[in-house]
Formats: sequence, C-alpha cells, structure tokens
Amino acid sequence: MEQRSSNEHEYEQIDLFFQKLPQPSNLSLIRQKVASFCSVQQKPIVLITSGGTAVPIEKNTVRFVDNFSAGTRGSASAEYFLRRNYAVIFLYRFKTLEPFTRHINIHSLLKSFTLDGNRKNLQVSSEMSESLKPVVENYQKLSESLLMVTFTTLSEYLYYLKEIALALQPLGSKAMLYLAAAVADFYIPYDNMAIHKIQSGEGPLRLHLEMVPKILRPLIKFWTPHAFVVSFKLETDESILVTKARKALEKYGHKIVIANALQTRKSTVILVEDKTDERIDVDSNSNVEIESIIVDKLISKHKVFMQ
Amino acid sequence: MEQRSSNEHEYEQIDLFFQKLPQPSNLSLIRQKVASFCSVQQKPIVLITSGGTAVPIEKNTVRFVDNFSAGTRGSASAEYFLRRNYAVIFLYRFKTLEPFTRHINIHSLLKSFTLDGNRKNLQVSSEMSESLKPVVENYQKLSESLLMVTFTTLSEYLYYLKEIALALQPLGSKAMLYLAAAVADFYIPYDNMAIHKIQSGEGPLRLHLEMVPKILRPLIKFWTPHAFVVSFKLETDESILVTKARKALEKYGHKIVIANALQTRKSTVILVEDKTDERIDVDSNSNVEIESIIVDKLISKHKVFMQ
Repeated sequence: MEQRSSNEHEYEQIDLFFQKLPQPSNLSLIRQKVASFCSVQQKPIVLITSGGTAVPIEKNTVRFVDNFSAGTRGSASAEYFLRRNYAVIFLYRFKTLEPFTRHINIHSLLKSFTLDGNRKNLQVSSEMSESLKPVVENYQKLSESLLMVTFTTLSEYLYYLKEIALALQPLGSKAMLYLAAAVADFYIPYDNMAIHKIQSGEGPLRLHLEMVPKILRPLIKFWTPHAFVVSFKLETDESILVTKARKALEKYGHKIVIANALQTRKSTVILVEDKTDERIDVDSNSNVEIESIIVDKLISKHKVFMQ
Repeated sequence: MEQRSSNEHEYEQIDLFFQKLPQPSNLSLIRQKVASFCSVQQKPIVLITSGGTAVPIEKNTVRFVDNFSAGTRGSASAEYFLRRNYAVIFLYRFKTLEPFTRHINIHSLLKSFTLDGNRKNLQVSSEMSESLKPVVENYQKLSESLLMVTFTTLSEYLYYLKEIALALQPLGSKAMLYLAAAVADFYIPYDNMAIHKIQSGEGPLRLHLEMVPKILRPLIKFWTPHAFVVSFKLETDESILVTKARKALEKYGHKIVIANALQTRKSTVILVEDKTDERIDVDSNSNVEIESIIVDKLISKHKVFMQ
C-alpha cells in the first residue's frame, strides 16, 4: 500500500466536506466575476469577509441558526482599504452593512427630496447634500475598485471563499485576506436535515449540530499559501481572548489575529502577532473609526511583507 | 378553596411566561410612542407584523435561531393599507423590507447623483427621478399615518405586540391585526441559556428548544377581543396547508387565516374563513402585487365587520 502524505489526506478531507455541502447554483457566475475583476487590477487586492453565516435547519428552509454580525467592521474597513488604493473583494452577508451605503439614512433622504423648478426632477435639500456629498464622491470614485459578492448560508460563504482565494493565489504576497466574517462553528449536515418545516405540534425541538471544519487551515495551507492573512477572534469573555487568539495563530501559522471582545469591539482591538501584542484603543466619543487605524497598521505590515 | 375560572388560569400562565422573558429596555418608550400615535388617528388602524424573530442561544448573544422572512408580505401590505386610508403600525424585524424604501436601489441612486450647476447640491438624474417620484410622493404624503417599530428577538416582538394590542383595544372593531410575521415556534428559556459564547472546542452542539406558547390565544381572547384579526399560515408542504389553516381558525376563533406555501407565496394565497376558502392567484409576470388584492379583500370584509 502506498504511503500518502498528511497533506494529501487533509486535502481529501476538506474535499469530502465540500462534496457534502450543497453547491450554490450561481458558483460559476461568481467565479467568472471574480476572475474578470482580478484580471484588471494593478493594485494589491484585499478580500474582506463580513457578516455572519446562516445554517439551515430544514432543506426547504424556514428556520436557521445564525451568527450575530451587523457587518460594521467589514464594511468600514472596506472603505479605508479603498481609500488607501487597494482593490477590494467584499464577500458579505446579504442585508448587512455595506461600504458607503452604510452612511445613508434612507428615510431622511426620502424626506429631503424636493422637485426642481420644473417639478420634473428630484433634488436633495442643501443640508442633506452637504452631508451626503463626500459619500457620493467617494462611492463614484472608488466603487470600480470594489467587487461585492453576497452570501446567506454557510455553504455559500465557504464555496465563494474558496473560489476567491484560488483566484487570488497567483497574486502571491500582493493579496491580503481580512477575514472579519462571523462564520458558524456548528452546522447541520445536509443529510441530517428535515425536508420540510418542522412542525411545532410535535413537541420541543432537539437540534444536533456538528462542528464546521476550520476552513482557515486549508485556506492558508493550500489555497493562498503566500498571501497576507488576517483573521479575527471574537469572544464575549475577555479573559480568554488573547490566549485564544494566540492559539489560532500558532495553529494556522498566518500573520495576524485581531482579537476583540463583543462588548468593546468598537473601541478596542488587540493585534496579536507571532511575538507581539498591540492594543489599539479609540475614544468611543471621537469621530475616529477604529477600522481606519486597523487598516493603516495592516497596510504598513503588508508593505514589509511584500518586500 | 376558591374555584377559579379557566380564563384566570390561562391569563396567569401567559403572565408567567412573560415574567421569564427578558423585558426590552425601551418598552416604556415604545408604549408612549404607540399611545401618542393612536391618540391622533381618525382612521381605522391596522397593526402589521412583519419579518422573523430571532431566538438567542447565549445570554451574551453571538448565536441565535432565526425564522426566514424578508418582510415582503408585510411591507407591501403596509403600503396598500396606507393608500386605502388606514393608519398603520408596522412592527417589523430590523433590517427586513420596509414600506416605500423597499423600492429603492441605493446603489443605483448613489450612481445617479450629480451636482447642480453651482456644484453645490446633489440632484437625481432624470431617468432615476422618473421612477423614484411616485415613491417619494407616496412616502411624503402617507408616512405621517405610519408608525414603524422594530424588533429583533422573540422577546421584543412579544412584548411590543402585547403593548400595541392593548393600545388598540379601545378602538374595538375599528382595529385590524394583520399578523404576517414569521414568529419562532421554539425558543430557549432564558434560564437555560449559556452565559457566554459557546466554545466550539467542546465538541458538537446539542440544542434543546422549548415550544413558544401560542400568543394568538391571549391576543384574541384578552388583549383585542373585538378587533378584526388576520393571521398567516406558512408551510413548505402544500398538502397540509389548508387543513392547518382551518385548525388554527377553529382553535383561536378569529376572522381569517391567510394560507400560503413557501414556494408559491408571491403568486397564490388562500383566504380561509369560518365556512369558506377563497383562492387568490396573480400571474407572477404581471406588475400586480398579490398584497394589493389581499388588502382590498380584507378592507371590504373589515367594513362589514365594523357595522
């Protein structure tokens, strides 16, 4: 019998996992879009993942287990990367915050519209124009360097992530992965799911969820081995935060884990690297978004990494 | 020992259930808003519930079980009720579709903005103005008859529903309840929840969910006994749909159950009443939204009911 390497074995394992996940019907369309986006970019490209993933309970899905995430971190970071001349692939959960549009209050905007002198075209009030102008200008200037891809379920997320990673592989160290999405740790394998909506008349519900294999492993080992990979660790219990972040770093061998606690994530993060921790704090009353500092720091480190 | 009526017993049971649910911190603010809205309306008022409810798994919530609903039915129906001169309380899941704004593609709008001759104020392109004008006009004309209240969790939904129902009680038959929200059937009682994010290192996840008491029962029996109550029944299995709808009607004794199957809900519904079923179909290629027909039919029936 042939001796097989552990790499081969591991690759087969993750392959097997994917084979059991329902494949999104638009996968080849996404593949084309990503390839065509990557082919025209001269800039470094960062893949930003954002939002949580839903895990269906039924095949005809009415119910699902979800991970809380509004997409604040990812959408804000995307803007700062774009402003710093990166191209951005924004892989985000449908209906969570998006770069640029996150600043717009659609109700205030609707209230502010008036008709021009000819009562023909809509115009925005002076006050609203003033606050909206920088957003519109940034959007119109930068959005051609932005590719948005949406997911809802864990399967969609994993399939798209793999496609995008493989498309970024040829960029080597010029690619960055900024994995801010809150991905489910547990899921119900497709074969174990009920076909129809589970009836409430049948009494209490017992759900058995299996563990999702850590996708960071094949990502770093096989799909984008030369990219600058940044992952996130969110906990509600601050006392275990840095320890868990460092463990992830040791386990997967990537560049940085950004550790954040649920309660303070908008004012404090800790950049955990191989030998150092760096704590970043912003005053939550200031106008500075912590993502602007995170992105600046990462871009400096990425520059060194690319040399 | 005193003989207590089954009503008293039932009231106590639901009271007990509420006592164990975490009470939303803004409940008294919502109470005030609803009271002040109701006090100025001359029109009939319809409460529309829309979207799904989230059921937290952890007290410091990272994960939750959710019910799929984009809020299409509720948000479209709200517009048609407003146009037909009803006041609307729209109790909806945060981030699901809203009346009026559901028509707006924010990306197209951002792309369409140009600066006026003085390069000062933003204006909307002619093409976009044309499609947007009716939405803006309806919004500006009708939105003072619309009160929007958002929820995310099952607790928030139930507490707000109770408050609004009690505020509508004095209106008697002039109030309509249009319960389109996809409310969770199962939940994890607060006392059984983990405090912190459940660690994935601890192996597969076993979740035990209890049944949510049918809130339609106290709603119809105690909170708004004279209102015109319309509930919805969604199934993925069409073969059990009408039977289940009629059972609900018999059990709770309200006016109408609107039965719909997940797959065909945008083109077909069945209005199930005490003695009749009425099937409504629209061609999914037509511009007619099925909600416009549902709302017309309900308003006719509500008129008869009020006499």
